[in-house]
Amino acid sequence: MLTGLSAFPLTPFQNEGIDEHAFVRLVHNLAEAEVDSIGVLGSTGSYMYLNRAERRRVIQLAFEHAGNIPIIAGIGALRTRDVLQAAEDAQTAGASGVLLAPVSYQPLTEDEVFDLYKQVSGELSIPLCVYDNPSTTKFTFTDELHGRISSLPNVSSIKIPGLPGNAAEAQDRVQKLRALIPEDVTIGISGDRFAALGLNAGCDGWYSVLGGLFPRTAMHIVRSAQEGRSQEASRLSEELEPIWTLFDRFGSLRPTATIALRRGWISGEGLPRPLKPLSPAELGDAAALIDRLD
Amino acid sequence: MLTGLSAFPLTPFQNEGIDEHAFVRLVHNLAEAEVDSIGVLGSTGSYMYLNRAERRRVIQLAFEHAGNIPIIAGIGALRTRDVLQAAEDAQTAGASGVLLAPVSYQPLTEDEVFDLYKQVSGELSIPLCVYDNPSTTKFTFTDELHGRISSLPNVSSIKIPGLPGNAAEAQDRVQKLRALIPEDVTIGISGDRFAALGLNAGCDGWYSVLGGLFPRTAMHIVRSAQEGRSQEASRLSEELEPIWTLFDRFGSLRPTATIALRRGWISGEGLPRPLKPLSPAELGDAAALIDRLD
Repeated sequence: MLTGLSAFPLTPFQNEGIDEHAFVRLVHNLAEAEVDSIGVLGSTGSYMYLNRAERRRVIQLAFEHAGNIPIIAGIGALRTRDVLQAAEDAQTAGASGVLLAPVSYQPLTEDEVFDLYKQVSGELSIPLCVYDNPSTTKFTFTDELHGRISSLPNVSSIKIPGLPGNAAEAQDRVQKLRALIPEDVTIGISGDRFAALGLNAGCDGWYSVLGGLFPRTAMHIVRSAQEGRSQEASRLSEELEPIWTLFDRFGSLRPTATIALRRGWISGEGLPRPLKPLSPAELGDAAALIDRLD
Repeated sequence: MLTGLSAFPLTPFQNEGIDEHAFVRLVHNLAEAEVDSIGVLGSTGSYMYLNRAERRRVIQLAFEHAGNIPIIAGIGALRTRDVLQAAEDAQTAGASGVLLAPVSYQPLTEDEVFDLYKQVSGELSIPLCVYDNPSTTKFTFTDELHGRISSLPNVSSIKIPGLPGNAAEAQDRVQKLRALIPEDVTIGISGDRFAALGLNAGCDGWYSVLGGLFPRTAMHIVRSAQEGRSQEASRLSEELEPIWTLFDRFGSLRPTATIALRRGWISGEGLPRPLKPLSPAELGDAAALIDRLD
């Protein structure tokens, strides 16, 4: 299940609450594009900004409207107690898998991170994807730790951040990690700029922000890479450079909400306050590309 | 009110919940030492790990057991909605002031931070202290922004992080900031290593982790500085070097819980999981000092 395109939709906000209608429209769009899975409550899904009831509701809505496409749900929280509750809620609400980052206020030690994954994976009955995102968690996984965690029960995938720039180095990086983890644990690339590079280098899937907005464009990249047309995958990714530049400058959440607002898929403030979308000036040259994608 | 020693107690955990008896004992100790204020739900009070009901309970307990010593309560949260709720809860539960850091999952922009303080300060009826802590918030205040925010209604103090190393530079830093903020807004030093330096350089108070554990020791430093005995304040601070070294290496929360466990003031796991106290080896040479303080 944790292979191919996992598309991560926004959780749209209006009047300080979740805009359920807009969220369902985003999910329908992903289901129609036949993505391989839908990842709700990722960073793009603003999971850390939602309370328990809101998180449960997002998973339920996705499950009800995604047809037979599996739902993966983010369950990260600062406190182990809350992670365990979120894991239970995700299973009850229909998720087929969960995504867990070692989020922190006080950055965690390696020992604390291992014990967190051990405790959570031991209580799960669905697959878990390790969410390696040093920029938001302030925690850097060693490959050795990835090896130990991915050997725990139910751990089925690792969502890795960017990769070194050229194809040979990227391939080397993926192979090194793969040598340390069980055979049935998949590696998914994130950091959309690196998607084509990562897929061409042997990653099994793409945990994709872009795919939550433009699933057809993202599917095109994934299928090209999967079918061995690596140059086409790279070319398609290069065409999206104005969007990658926005993500580099502003992170991916604010640009994603801004794009969805511009395309009319969501309305209102879009993001949970205090976060704000970009200004038209910040969007800049990317606007023309955004208006014609998918 | 936001001057002198503001002592920040731990929120002790046992069996995944708040150990209320241990917390009340910590508050009694601060009240007996006649600190100038008690700062609950700071970073040392694990505020980000607590849900709404737990935060309210901590403030109520402090208010009930602190005699006439004012309570300052941390109200930081990722979402403006939750900050506003926490502010309301703090006022209802008896807090005399609130402490707000621009905490983030997605680091905030200057514009977002200003609007957050504007919205919150506009709805308060008690003083607000701006909590400037770049290491946990990933946000760096400019002095110009401090000037704008401290001119908002109800903003009464700024809790600043460390200072440059020598007395003249520290004094210069405090004077520069003071020139940009209203006269009645106080400046409090945090980063305990810098307390004596900051107080000697003209800070009005110390937002103190050490004071939550060893209020008599911390009061001795504050009163020495306030009464012009700057060398004595510096000497007292230097004696605590083994503790400052622990804070440098491990942050202040884990050492604080470890010290409270060692002195028998709290029991159980001490911290909210996944956080763990230090090992005896990590405590190292500081143990002898810890055992005889206060």
